Amino acid sequence: MLQENSYPDWIACDWGTSNLRVWAMRGSEVLAEAKSGDGMGGLARDEFEGKLLNLIENWLPSGTTPVVACGMVGSRQGWAEAPYVAVPAAPYSTAVKVPTKDSRIAMHILPGLKQENPPDVMRGEETQIAGFLAENPNFDGVLCLPGTHSKWAHISAVEVVSFQTQMTGELFSLLAKSSVLRHSVGADLGEGFAEAVSETLSKPEVIAAKLFQIRASDLLKGTSGANAHARLSGLLIGLELAATRPYWLGQNVALVGSTSLTSSYAQALETQGVLAVQADGAEITIKGLTAAYSELVT
Amino acid sequence: MLQENSYPDWIACDWGTSNLRVWAMRGSEVLAEAKSGDGMGGLARDEFEGKLLNLIENWLPSGTTPVVACGMVGSRQGWAEAPYVAVPAAPYSTAVKVPTKDSRIAMHILPGLKQENPPDVMRGEETQIAGFLAENPNFDGVLCLPGTHSKWAHISAVEVVSFQTQMTGELFSLLAKSSVLRHSVGADLGEGFAEAVSETLSKPEVIAAKLFQIRASDLLKGTSGANAHARLSGLLIGLELAATRPYWLGQNVALVGSTSLTSSYAQALETQGVLAVQADGAEITIKGLTAAYSELVT
Repeated sequence: MLQENSYPDWIACDWGTSNLRVWAMRGSEVLAEAKSGDGMGGLARDEFEGKLLNLIENWLPSGTTPVVACGMVGSRQGWAEAPYVAVPAAPYSTAVKVPTKDSRIAMHILPGLKQENPPDVMRGEETQIAGFLAENPNFDGVLCLPGTHSKWAHISAVEVVSFQTQMTGELFSLLAKSSVLRHSVGADLGEGFAEAVSETLSKPEVIAAKLFQIRASDLLKGTSGANAHARLSGLLIGLELAATRPYWLGQNVALVGSTSLTSSYAQALETQGVLAVQADGAEITIKGLTAAYSELVT
Repeated sequence: MLQENSYPDWIACDWGTSNLRVWAMRGSEVLAEAKSGDGMGGLARDEFEGKLLNLIENWLPSGTTPVVACGMVGSRQGWAEAPYVAVPAAPYSTAVKVPTKDSRIAMHILPGLKQENPPDVMRGEETQIAGFLAENPNFDGVLCLPGTHSKWAHISAVEVVSFQTQMTGELFSLLAKSSVLRHSVGADLGEGFAEAVSETLSKPEVIAAKLFQIRASDLLKGTSGANAHARLSGLLIGLELAATRPYWLGQNVALVGSTSLTSSYAQALETQGVLAVQADGAEITIKGLTAAYSELVT
């Protein structure tokens, strides 16, 4: 329970496939935060409200408190569908109001963005883009949001002009944890990252052979797990940079995500002469949700 | 139990990570066959002999019957290590004799091949290569053995000169069953394979973006699961062909494997003007083991 003088006036919520994160907010100030593993992926439609209330109910004052949520909670398999908005579009979209059984909350879910050709979608990252633009309203250039499904977005005049998704993070996780490489890839990050980046950036077609070489090199030469980790990461990020060259070449690039990821991407881009700024993903998400809340109450 | 006049004079054995297949043999003739899910991956060192005897004990005459095995059973984590032979080398190698508790069998395991630079290894495929060369002793060119880890081997004068492994099959399986694409990829094979091959063959760097487009295209346009399957398969095989171009371009190519796989690869190669012959993987394995058995008894 929060102190009476510190009741939130709204709740920020980032609800992805695997996790649920909530923040008790007063304006743009974070009063408290909580999280759980109740991601969208594991919930039936009628379970969302209860799982959310489990986390936030001690924060709620009397009356009705607005909740603003982004992420997969708004997908077709989520709590309620918040239909995609087609680009070119501002990342600030009108939230979809979702009825609740409990009158203590007024639930709002932000829609994702879609692109018809080439087909692409995002949910959650549009809120990070909005958060980044709230902080940097004059930014023109390219935002890269590395993660399970990395997003590269071309930003001009506070709009997302086009974007492209790369499955880099999910490939890394599947290869490191579920493929034959799991015997060779360790948890720590060793040496050889930049070299691996340049191999796939210059010859992207070698990826599937270079992947198996991580295993063979361990079997024949006893390569360390940490160096195998750095190589796997470098090969996949190099491949991503090869594909997104039209996005970053000669552009103003900003990276938004966890520090460990954005610093790897920044290091890879630096080898190509691109000096990217970095911003923390969680903070930017809160700023994006705050911007959406401001729209709601004005 | 076999008829007395049909006792085998030896046992052929293909023992991979996931499966164990055995054949009761008289010379090059198959008398009976059996298989189980007791792959190397699930067995401790002292379990191998018992699992093998479970399958073949009813076939054994009095006296000692030779068993010739290939595959991961000879890896460091297998029954006993049969150290890799370095290429360039003939795929026919001397089997490693492995002591058994039960005197009814004399166990022999065939070694794999290794390549120091670029580092690469194979176990089991060398026996298929030997089987193919037993049938086609004058073959000079390239053998492709598509599978979990596809092998491309340059064959000259009955030797493996060099080879390269691609993780195509494992990537397909991880993506189709364990990634976000599992929601979109069906079991049947639909249309769009050749088009997808040409996309990654001409621009391999687009792979990670094209993969996510399979999901986005399903979400936005309701692409069928069968067509998503064909596209995923085509994108990955196209990527493999982009990487192995020096192997197949203008070469004499033969494909060895399951009919469904070799026909997909043949179709992909045909778009590039390469007409590859196809051979059934299981039959070729038996021929390779038979060639090894012949060496053993001469």
